[in-house]
Amino acid sequence: MKKNPTILTKTALAKTKLFQVEGLDILFDNQTQVQFERLVSSQQGAVLIVPIMEDCLVLIREYAAGVERYELGFPKGKIDPGESWREAAIRESQEEVGFLPGLVTLLDSVTLAASYMSHQTHIVLAESLSHSKTQGDEPEPLEVIHWPLADWHKLIQHPEFSEGRAYAALMLTLKQLGLL
Amino acid sequence: MKKNPTILTKTALAKTKLFQVEGLDILFDNQTQVQFERLVSSQQGAVLIVPIMEDCLVLIREYAAGVERYELGFPKGKIDPGESWREAAIRESQEEVGFLPGLVTLLDSVTLAASYMSHQTHIVLAESLSHSKTQGDEPEPLEVIHWPLADWHKLIQHPEFSEGRAYAALMLTLKQLGLL
Repeated sequence: MKKNPTILTKTALAKTKLFQVEGLDILFDNQTQVQFERLVSSQQGAVLIVPIMEDCLVLIREYAAGVERYELGFPKGKIDPGESWREAAIRESQEEVGFLPGLVTLLDSVTLAASYMSHQTHIVLAESLSHSKTQGDEPEPLEVIHWPLADWHKLIQHPEFSEGRAYAALMLTLKQLGLL
Repeated sequence: MKKNPTILTKTALAKTKLFQVEGLDILFDNQTQVQFERLVSSQQGAVLIVPIMEDCLVLIREYAAGVERYELGFPKGKIDPGESWREAAIRESQEEVGFLPGLVTLLDSVTLAASYMSHQTHIVLAESLSHSKTQGDEPEPLEVIHWPLADWHKLIQHPEFSEGRAYAALMLTLKQLGLL
């Protein structure tokens, strides 16, 4: 196993309300030295919740400003400072789909683009749901869609289902439930 | 179907060599007006290639500065200006794993984080491979790993296999090949 290259310097390059760009000088084992840029996210990361109810996935349809259209996917959100993945999953589940999970299971943690983003998304299966709606910070009410688990083939063909981490969440859920 | 909100203004907020942050003023159908930030990527996007050889996935193991460790995944790279997804996939495949694909198939295009990134990754299945190594721009030679398709369960459990879009590529490939 190769050992990790040495990070010689880290420099703050840009900062906005949401994003923080860092420059790195990196020395590889073969003495090659290169400059990288990366996006630095909060240490806590985000949760993506897969709520399951009566053999359906509970999905949301939400405006996605990055791609300028509505996106079909799983409820998710940043973990607040001091919050655990469990607390964040329970909070976001109530805010975004109006369900309190009785059982939450951490399936795995995934990255977006490991070479240039530190961001981590923790994938949480949420079961034993009961109705409990709390107020989130969305600009408009989210559309909530119950999608039969058995129709997962159709979901990955849906043009509005596009996020890599949503595929990961679906695959890990199907495996966890013995459906793959 | 709800119609898309109106983008009232777009403002450049920050720009580095690799990243470009944009501020948006958005008016929703319910007259709520909000400010968003997003990362703007090149129109062309990137390709992620799934090379298949003798019932194996051809993977690479590469240092990932975003997470400060080696990452196991598929060869990929930006589409150069003027290049098609097909040309980029054929080029990157030779640079990163040393194989010229005789057959390339576009399986789907995925996003990273649709709400705040415009980035698109085109997932390309590469088959009928023959040896052809060309020089890429990597700081050190990439480790190339042949991973049996039948062992995909072990791959998604591997701690170095973490990118959401790699899960998407794996799932779409297994489906395309009739293995899911």
